[in-house]
Amino acid sequence: MIFLDYASATPVSEAAKKAMAPYLSEKFFNPSSPYLAAKRVREDYEAAKDTLAHLIGAKGDDLIITSGATEANSLAFSAVETGKILTLKTEHDSILKNCENYNTEFVKVDRSGRIDLDDFRNKLDQNTTFVTISLANNELGTIQPLSDIAEMIKTECKERLKNQNPLPLYFHSDASQSLGLVPISVARLGVDLLTLNSAKVYGPKGVGALYAGHRVKLKSSQKGGGQERGLRSGTENVPGLIGFAKAAEEAKKHQDKNRKHYEKLVEILKSELKNSPIEPIFLGNKKHQLANFCPVSFPGIDAERIIYLLEDDEIYLSTGAACAASKGEKSHVLKAINLSEEEIAGSLRISLGLQNTEEDIKIAGRKIVSAINKEIARL
Amino acid sequence: MIFLDYASATPVSEAAKKAMAPYLSEKFFNPSSPYLAAKRVREDYEAAKDTLAHLIGAKGDDLIITSGATEANSLAFSAVETGKILTLKTEHDSILKNCENYNTEFVKVDRSGRIDLDDFRNKLDQNTTFVTISLANNELGTIQPLSDIAEMIKTECKERLKNQNPLPLYFHSDASQSLGLVPISVARLGVDLLTLNSAKVYGPKGVGALYAGHRVKLKSSQKGGGQERGLRSGTENVPGLIGFAKAAEEAKKHQDKNRKHYEKLVEILKSELKNSPIEPIFLGNKKHQLANFCPVSFPGIDAERIIYLLEDDEIYLSTGAACAASKGEKSHVLKAINLSEEEIAGSLRISLGLQNTEEDIKIAGRKIVSAINKEIARL
Repeated sequence: MIFLDYASATPVSEAAKKAMAPYLSEKFFNPSSPYLAAKRVREDYEAAKDTLAHLIGAKGDDLIITSGATEANSLAFSAVETGKILTLKTEHDSILKNCENYNTEFVKVDRSGRIDLDDFRNKLDQNTTFVTISLANNELGTIQPLSDIAEMIKTECKERLKNQNPLPLYFHSDASQSLGLVPISVARLGVDLLTLNSAKVYGPKGVGALYAGHRVKLKSSQKGGGQERGLRSGTENVPGLIGFAKAAEEAKKHQDKNRKHYEKLVEILKSELKNSPIEPIFLGNKKHQLANFCPVSFPGIDAERIIYLLEDDEIYLSTGAACAASKGEKSHVLKAINLSEEEIAGSLRISLGLQNTEEDIKIAGRKIVSAINKEIARL
Repeated sequence: MIFLDYASATPVSEAAKKAMAPYLSEKFFNPSSPYLAAKRVREDYEAAKDTLAHLIGAKGDDLIITSGATEANSLAFSAVETGKILTLKTEHDSILKNCENYNTEFVKVDRSGRIDLDDFRNKLDQNTTFVTISLANNELGTIQPLSDIAEMIKTECKERLKNQNPLPLYFHSDASQSLGLVPISVARLGVDLLTLNSAKVYGPKGVGALYAGHRVKLKSSQKGGGQERGLRSGTENVPGLIGFAKAAEEAKKHQDKNRKHYEKLVEILKSELKNSPIEPIFLGNKKHQLANFCPVSFPGIDAERIIYLLEDDEIYLSTGAACAASKGEKSHVLKAINLSEEEIAGSLRISLGLQNTEEDIKIAGRKIVSAINKEIARL
């Protein structure tokens, strides 16, 4: 099997599995129970939270552990009471669907999916209360200039202080795809809220986190026992967090090495894909792109057919985000960056991961080209 | 170690762990991805949902998989738009905190925690839109007569049809503590909504489910990719559900055998505890109680001190629900059944589980009595 869709899912790393194991068995206690053995589990849970928080330059207490990125994004929106939201049409559905409840303005992006900062500056006004822009796009891998955006937000906040405008203005970013691939520091990025996702970083599914600085006022999503600062009740998913923290720690430790590896693989892949009879259009932003992303379009080809042809060789890749793909929808991301119908129909989302080798990528590249040749012969 | 607090947490069964393992590794795919290997994971996920649903006499499509019982309870409340809620003061915080947003009336319970059906009949009126009563109480193990309640609800619904009263009336029950201990059939119980919890039935933490008949109108708790009938977006926690379903299946298979085992253990425990210099008051309803529950009070004793004394012998038990215990709060359940301050202060929540043996329980009973003796000597 050659898997080229790591943006949709990752296997759980051996280190994470090993770290989780005791918490399924002998350390299964409810961390809120009053006896010593359970209190030790509480300590381990809080220590894992610290580990995870430190990876993004935060404190454990700044994190609210959730069941995944979608829940973390929803929780982030609980900070919005009124006013205008600024976001991008290229954001994930878990952002866009929440925006539907609010007055939302969309900031322009270029054909690489990168935000138009001038347009952002123009649209950021005294009524804006929430800005949500993912650190890197989940289909293109395009990295956004969050600290530049944060600077403008800071200026607007100063303006509000001067004008005695009491409206809050929060900056949220979904970093689901980025953790372990690029350095993340909440202070350097200038965000108030940041979403993290275990399932994309070789941790277990069903766990995520929302970083929320203490100045941000959130509303409880699940009421009950009062866990997670009272913002997210429910018995803590101890093994989940332990696995997430361990996986994220590993990813961070090997970040530079992995990046170089991915750069090499993408280079090989691109050079193979250039042998296609249809010239590939490499999508996303060459300068500002997650190293493991290689989204590409072969206009005139039906990418879905390519996926089915490659399935026989156990080569797995996708046309876009999994949740959209399952509904047979065309990528709203590719529409938003103004690709033509033909370019969208011919698009493959290729995202590499830890199990890929140079040899695999060479084979995969050749198989993709031969699938394209087959399709052309058929047409 | 002798663990006597299975109502707070259970270890993950070997069968569940084994069932989950492939989905952390070679079957790690996102079930919404378009290639065959991922579609097989989707099939396995839906099959696990069917398995779980069949255990309660429902269809897979009737279940919304959540991150636990607290989320399932919150989601159940999304069915309430207006009108009056009927519930009990003995319910879990994840019910009571949600009730705070609504006009709520509390139905009387007796000293065993059992609902007063006459009081229920009186309070059930044309404005009632939601009734939420757990199948078995989480501190007392007291089982409620849900089908009797359902009968009255059905009568009220017929009345509404006749009077053209368009208000919906839904019956919800939290069965977190009950799954695998008593037979559960949604049809027989007559509920519209039922909460299930993996972590209490030897499945993994961080997974739960809400059964919701299709006539119930729920509101999405997490917006995004549209998973779980569009009611609960987010990449599915595949290993979580697979483990949950397997654990629940096992529990159901051995239900009768386990019940007999627990009855034997509770008998042994009670006979040991009767050697205490302070006569034990066994709490809950003798006739209608989960077989593994043995809550007990020794009035005049500080139960928290007993817990600390037993810790040294690696005997673990609790004074009440873990989430309340961690905040140093006295049990609201015991208050609601009108125990005296002394009875509450002297209460232990003992709940047995699969790892307990007759020998263990004898030892534990004796150690509890000797701890009480020590306490009396100290006073």
